[in-house]
Amino acid sequence: MQELLNTINSPKALRLLNQKDLPQLANELREFIINVVATKEGHLGASLGVVELTIALHYIFNTPNDQLIWDVGHQAYGHKILTGRKDIFHTNRQIGGLSGFPKRGESDYDAFGVGHSSTSISAALGMAIASQLKGDTKKQHIAIIGDASIASGMAFEGLNHAGVTDTNLLVILNDNAIGIDPSVGALKQYLTNVKKGTQKQDNIFEALNFDYSGPIDGHDIDLIISELKRLKTIKGPKFLHLITTKGKGLKQAEEDQVKYHAPGKFNAQTGDLIVKSEIVQPPKYQDVFGHTIVELAKQNKSIVGITPAMPTGSSLKYMMDEIPERAFDVGIAEQHAVTLAAGMATQGLVPFCNIYSTFLQRAYDQVIHDVALQKLPVIFCLDRAGLVGEDGATHHGVYDLSYLRCIPNLIIFSPRNEIELRNIMYTVQLNLEQPIAIRYPRGRGITIDWEQPFSKIEIGKGIRLKKGTNIAILSIGAIAKNVSEAIQKCNTPQDIAHYDMRFVKPLDENLLHDIFTTYKTIVTIEDNAIKGGFGSAILEFAAANNYKSTINVLGLPDNFIEHGSVNKLQESIGLDAESLTHYINQALL
Amino acid sequence: MQELLNTINSPKALRLLNQKDLPQLANELREFIINVVATKEGHLGASLGVVELTIALHYIFNTPNDQLIWDVGHQAYGHKILTGRKDIFHTNRQIGGLSGFPKRGESDYDAFGVGHSSTSISAALGMAIASQLKGDTKKQHIAIIGDASIASGMAFEGLNHAGVTDTNLLVILNDNAIGIDPSVGALKQYLTNVKKGTQKQDNIFEALNFDYSGPIDGHDIDLIISELKRLKTIKGPKFLHLITTKGKGLKQAEEDQVKYHAPGKFNAQTGDLIVKSEIVQPPKYQDVFGHTIVELAKQNKSIVGITPAMPTGSSLKYMMDEIPERAFDVGIAEQHAVTLAAGMATQGLVPFCNIYSTFLQRAYDQVIHDVALQKLPVIFCLDRAGLVGEDGATHHGVYDLSYLRCIPNLIIFSPRNEIELRNIMYTVQLNLEQPIAIRYPRGRGITIDWEQPFSKIEIGKGIRLKKGTNIAILSIGAIAKNVSEAIQKCNTPQDIAHYDMRFVKPLDENLLHDIFTTYKTIVTIEDNAIKGGFGSAILEFAAANNYKSTINVLGLPDNFIEHGSVNKLQESIGLDAESLTHYINQALL
Repeated sequence: MQELLNTINSPKALRLLNQKDLPQLANELREFIINVVATKEGHLGASLGVVELTIALHYIFNTPNDQLIWDVGHQAYGHKILTGRKDIFHTNRQIGGLSGFPKRGESDYDAFGVGHSSTSISAALGMAIASQLKGDTKKQHIAIIGDASIASGMAFEGLNHAGVTDTNLLVILNDNAIGIDPSVGALKQYLTNVKKGTQKQDNIFEALNFDYSGPIDGHDIDLIISELKRLKTIKGPKFLHLITTKGKGLKQAEEDQVKYHAPGKFNAQTGDLIVKSEIVQPPKYQDVFGHTIVELAKQNKSIVGITPAMPTGSSLKYMMDEIPERAFDVGIAEQHAVTLAAGMATQGLVPFCNIYSTFLQRAYDQVIHDVALQKLPVIFCLDRAGLVGEDGATHHGVYDLSYLRCIPNLIIFSPRNEIELRNIMYTVQLNLEQPIAIRYPRGRGITIDWEQPFSKIEIGKGIRLKKGTNIAILSIGAIAKNVSEAIQKCNTPQDIAHYDMRFVKPLDENLLHDIFTTYKTIVTIEDNAIKGGFGSAILEFAAANNYKSTINVLGLPDNFIEHGSVNKLQESIGLDAESLTHYINQALL
Repeated sequence: MQELLNTINSPKALRLLNQKDLPQLANELREFIINVVATKEGHLGASLGVVELTIALHYIFNTPNDQLIWDVGHQAYGHKILTGRKDIFHTNRQIGGLSGFPKRGESDYDAFGVGHSSTSISAALGMAIASQLKGDTKKQHIAIIGDASIASGMAFEGLNHAGVTDTNLLVILNDNAIGIDPSVGALKQYLTNVKKGTQKQDNIFEALNFDYSGPIDGHDIDLIISELKRLKTIKGPKFLHLITTKGKGLKQAEEDQVKYHAPGKFNAQTGDLIVKSEIVQPPKYQDVFGHTIVELAKQNKSIVGITPAMPTGSSLKYMMDEIPERAFDVGIAEQHAVTLAAGMATQGLVPFCNIYSTFLQRAYDQVIHDVALQKLPVIFCLDRAGLVGEDGATHHGVYDLSYLRCIPNLIIFSPRNEIELRNIMYTVQLNLEQPIAIRYPRGRGITIDWEQPFSKIEIGKGIRLKKGTNIAILSIGAIAKNVSEAIQKCNTPQDIAHYDMRFVKPLDENLLHDIFTTYKTIVTIEDNAIKGGFGSAILEFAAANNYKSTINVLGLPDNFIEHGSVNKLQESIGLDAESLTHYINQALL
């Protein structure tokens, strides 16, 4: 079926093909990607859109000596398959299997590890400068970046520097007018005008001193090849503008590009999504956020919602649909998102700024300098906190408690279930006088009947979930579920008390005094790095009050956690219910 | 002498003047700024460059209802003086006095607190959107941003969003071709071409959908006024390109713009700097860094140096002068700087990436995602860690130990003196296999005779500086000086042991086991936030090993520290030698 593709074990083999055979290879590669992703799940649309580009790049350039950097990495499935990983591609995103993103340790062809967007130009420029310093004038360095990613500030910083160098850098803009959701912003509008031919003389990339060419059809493999050949001979920074269709080659994926970004399982022949069973399940935290902000915003006209390019992922989409004038997708621009929220807060608006935990790392300074220092009541909703699963090391949101805890004026709360998320959202839009970060996980919660009337949460108050006589377990956030299960299954549940501290900051010091005067052994549990996290806060409290209890801090160990299902990853670090049961039984000996 | 200026207690009074009197007011304002800064020190050049603009803005716009946001805030002295703070302007940057930057708590005219660059467009847009939602179509929102700051990614993110809104936003580019050091990058080159009239049709700001006007002479007050009047009537995002001269009105400041950015004391009449006494003093840590990297780079051809816009401040300038091909000023682009370094490290270069502690907050994600996750041996030199003094709350580098400690693969070292800084720099360029952050303070060290032969520092090894029988003090970094002085002056120095742990990560666990089995009272001291910092690491070690010693954690309290001399600030939080002596005497009771 894939007679050409089956012969390609490396780009060397690819480069032996006749150019006229490449369209067939493209068809086979597309089919292969569709077949595997249909059953194994993963990111579909982006890689389908760059099949011709991927083949052309490896055909023309001398990879891996010439270096390809795929921005974000959603686009790189074809690249992985053509660079010797076809036979293990079915392990994509599974524990122990291939990473869903380019990864240096996985292949020499993966010149730079990615996952977050907009890093490719800076990384490629660093490599290109290194080649220049070594006197290597032949080596090529190619960043392939999407139109959503290039609008992020970091990409602009890379372009701004690259434009004044004379390095062998080629930036290829994979312009499909969409990131995960449709691209936004003035640059997107500009690119649209360029494509339509309605833009005047202005060329931003030429103004930044790049040798610009395009826009050209990114699915015309002969055209791409001839253009890459030409660009290879030009010195200095070059820019190729390529028009592609996300999801190219699968009708449904072209038509519903948002859904088919990462569609889950689907029928490879028809393209139809495989509908999951209709069992009533608890909601996703994301949907609880999305529905609740709409509900609140209808009452409170000061509420605004902000997302940096994740309307679907965060479910802010519901508000964008219902109250578009107060819901803002600002593109991949976390820094701007946070300071925009700060500006809004100065004027009495109530901004809910929804950012994935791992992406808030991109706006850390803005949280400190623009929000907390000015004590502005911005409400950060940190989605996908904790382990996120298959996206892996680049995407786990496991540092936020550590990096936020040192920031003065900031409240940090983590709901253990959907009701708590709703109620804290209700509480903080009433009359908050300082910023708060609300961290919650990716995926489903535990409460089917979650749409309860709102009730107010007292800031800084933890609660006891279960009495006990011997050991107190203090948890934070949704990991409380594993703890509860573990206690139920342990040898003597009556020995174990369980507290949900809820607030990492301010700590409930009254409750802690009770706990420390009652129990000689305290166990803290969190799905954050143990260095500097929630457990560390408890240690600081104990030291400051000279309590001498034994405190065991459980959480993420001090190494990067790879990809795999959340359950399996929790097992691997001892945070699943079964491991915790075992841990508790041992502690009780 | 300042007969007009003396009548201006608020912009209301200013708006009563005849336009023909404004040039005289400009002269008086300039003179006033020069006279105060000459004796009280502070940032000079930036504010001198915008005297006419400042007057024109308050003359035309209805401040404080119309909102001015001064990017970075170096430019805002004239603004402060005209908005009711003339009589206390002599307290600028002193403890309890005016902040050197706009600050919301200080005046209604300071619409947004600043200090770090490139936040103004996002903040102003947030305010402008708020006005729009409130139905206020008259209110104006004005960001005044320099050409160095607008090249930073965050500013681009703001422009990209603003361009697709129809808000009352005016961005004024104060283009003087210099930040603290001369501006760099393709955008700077583009702006230069625009000024010379050699740029083709390309207009970046029009391409981003702004109504662009200029460039105009930023010292022609009538021209600025007529242009502002015109722009005030135009709806939607507007962009005014103003050409100014940094240091305008003081000959030396115009001629040596880098030195007169913040010149220290000078003769207000002649402009000559007041030369300090020739007493031999210990060097600045910055100079130790700057000379040492040159020394090492001459031997090790793989060494490269990177600074985001701080060549003078960091002293990377020495390397830029001597080995320009391997020393890079990338502009205000911390995110790019870090990932550029990562790209270089993949190719075997040895990048020293020098970033102020407070500015590394801008590149936090890049440290995690691009460097540490890939275990790339980038050497971060974190300048201005700890309290920085007069720049105040926006600039203190007091969170880095907390925000870096949770990052796997990262080594964290802090030298207690110049020799240690030199030796760690020597050590890590030999064969480092993972990233390291080296944090050191602003200003002078303690060792006049600092240029000693290099010796290697064993990674992860702390040292005992002084024996003692009763209490062990564990310090990190240059605060060791205060600790040593405090011990000498305490009642029974023989009771106190002093350890310089040197590495916050990895901790010297062997040494810690010795300490914890020897002493029942441990005191940790750091000039970082106590939440999650060095002391917290010691608590984690003790808990993990079930040590029950009393541990007292000293460091920065959980609130923002304002501006003032480092000594006075240390006194205010009990970290000066005298306070520490008192603390130790109490602990010994």
